[in-house]
Amino acid sequence: MSQQFTPVSHLGEFGLIDRMRTRLGQEASPDLLLGIGDDAAVYRISDDRSHVVTTDALVEGVHFDRSFVPMGHLGRKAIAVNVSDVVAMNARPRYATVTLGMPRNLSVEMVEALYDGMAEACASYGMEIVGGDTTASPQMVISVTVIGEARTEDLIFRRGAHPGDLVCLSGNVGAAFAGLQILLDQRREMQELGPRFEPNIEAYRYVIGRQLTPEARIDALSSWRESGIRPHALIDVSDGVASEIHHLCAASGCGAIIEATSLPVHPETAAAAAERVADLDTYALFGGEDYELLFALDPDEADRLDGDLFTVIGQFTPAEEGIVVRGEDGHEIPLTASGYNHFEPGGDGAAE
Amino acid sequence: MSQQFTPVSHLGEFGLIDRMRTRLGQEASPDLLLGIGDDAAVYRISDDRSHVVTTDALVEGVHFDRSFVPMGHLGRKAIAVNVSDVVAMNARPRYATVTLGMPRNLSVEMVEALYDGMAEACASYGMEIVGGDTTASPQMVISVTVIGEARTEDLIFRRGAHPGDLVCLSGNVGAAFAGLQILLDQRREMQELGPRFEPNIEAYRYVIGRQLTPEARIDALSSWRESGIRPHALIDVSDGVASEIHHLCAASGCGAIIEATSLPVHPETAAAAAERVADLDTYALFGGEDYELLFALDPDEADRLDGDLFTVIGQFTPAEEGIVVRGEDGHEIPLTASGYNHFEPGGDGAAE
Repeated sequence: MSQQFTPVSHLGEFGLIDRMRTRLGQEASPDLLLGIGDDAAVYRISDDRSHVVTTDALVEGVHFDRSFVPMGHLGRKAIAVNVSDVVAMNARPRYATVTLGMPRNLSVEMVEALYDGMAEACASYGMEIVGGDTTASPQMVISVTVIGEARTEDLIFRRGAHPGDLVCLSGNVGAAFAGLQILLDQRREMQELGPRFEPNIEAYRYVIGRQLTPEARIDALSSWRESGIRPHALIDVSDGVASEIHHLCAASGCGAIIEATSLPVHPETAAAAAERVADLDTYALFGGEDYELLFALDPDEADRLDGDLFTVIGQFTPAEEGIVVRGEDGHEIPLTASGYNHFEPGGDGAAE
Repeated sequence: MSQQFTPVSHLGEFGLIDRMRTRLGQEASPDLLLGIGDDAAVYRISDDRSHVVTTDALVEGVHFDRSFVPMGHLGRKAIAVNVSDVVAMNARPRYATVTLGMPRNLSVEMVEALYDGMAEACASYGMEIVGGDTTASPQMVISVTVIGEARTEDLIFRRGAHPGDLVCLSGNVGAAFAGLQILLDQRREMQELGPRFEPNIEAYRYVIGRQLTPEARIDALSSWRESGIRPHALIDVSDGVASEIHHLCAASGCGAIIEATSLPVHPETAAAAAERVADLDTYALFGGEDYELLFALDPDEADRLDGDLFTVIGQFTPAEEGIVVRGEDGHEIPLTASGYNHFEPGGDGAAE
């Protein structure tokens, strides 16, 4: 019998996660409330409390370019992206472990700057790093696991949105992608001009900051509690609004309509898109790494939503209506998911 | 001011862990019973129970050679080495997360074999994989985090050995190192002989198995409980007996004397050492990756120790007597720690 081998790049990340779930998700302890497939796994630790756990890795040459990203920023980002997954369960981060793979010639000063960035992020999120592993590696690899805690009844999953619920978003989107574009342009200029290069990033400090040091929206949790709001379904926007709304709809058995004109964008994001003659909606819908929160809200709670933090960008609909985006002219077009795929060439701008 | 940079290879793994502890171990929640520095971190989850968490990564080219190690074995090993750290706290593993970095051309079949090996290991240890991350990476990287559970009063730390306590060991040591030597010899022969190569490993199946698929000694926990034994201090042997006894002594403020003639070795380990005209004690004391348990036992409990599982190999002494090994002739020599150091050239046989 001849054997055919399939490279993993043919499956993509979500295909791989499906395989992982099939192969590994067999046994289930009664304490395990949620396994592979949401932002984080959930297991009960006492009668009324649960822990959530999530893990996310940053690989040099795939997620970042060491010559290009300050180590302190990288440390903060490695923590923030994991905290974002914990927050996306409506839980608070408590503990983290860090695996650091590094080339033998990496300087101790760089490692310390990385650790300092992590410590800074942990302090700001009220959590601590409790363990780790260091190892040699040809490329830098930073793998972080974060454990968070919540009252079990407070947990919010991807499932739970109902037709009629409002689609809401924290902050603004497309900024991290805009920042990445600026940084890539600057790098290209630097390579072309050599010593004559003068960095020109003042006009884009905000979007560059969003790319280099994204923040997990832990402030949303406090706002909801204070306003007596409880989202029906929740996810963080790591791969772009378009991709995440598909996850929410798939888990909840809904469709959704997104109002393109309601998508919150920062003026610098708009300027960056305009400068490149690019479609701003594309930035806002498909740009990844914003780490904002996307959630389903009962319309009755809409008047309690803090307008400084959140925007209503659409509405959940019955599944058969699909997932569509309505443009300025009122025209509706189907919204595809296409988020990031690190396994496909060109899938991640940072590495290419 | 001129700046001097220090490559991480100058610090080594333990130096890096010290830096990590200094930079990161600042804040401490009252629930955190143990942070960076033991086999696993420990945090309280309820009045009487605690969780332990540990993380360990395997990197292609550093810890394994993909052309050389079956993926199923690698999956089992990645789980086992982490479970071993949980067991070394006298806790039982419950949940794991897995980060898998892989080259784009890796076959789906290899990934599935890896997952199957992990699932097999998890089933045998009574635990489950609850989450993970997959990403592209130039080299394969497998980072596993395992969360275990114990009654808080049952936890055993590295500290706690008293002078007079017996130094005890599960199973036998030096076997994984012997297996590695055999595998490296076979690879060399294969490269030299090409198609004329015939594998010759039948005589060394046991030690090769110890290298490729080590088992965490979770059986020791049940044995102790059934015999009413409670070790005073405990560690797993990942970097060699010599290195681990130094950790136990440092944490407990003790010295120790190890009887070279008491070190348990398997006949295949002895044969592998003899074939290479190598010192068997060197294999037993410095060979890494055995994942046996090394512990301090109250002499009053010695008669309850299951002789099929455990061996008494020495005694803890006052700190000022140092850490020594007594040879067959009764002569005592100081025992150095020198375990593995992945950051030093030649520090890890598998990669060189």
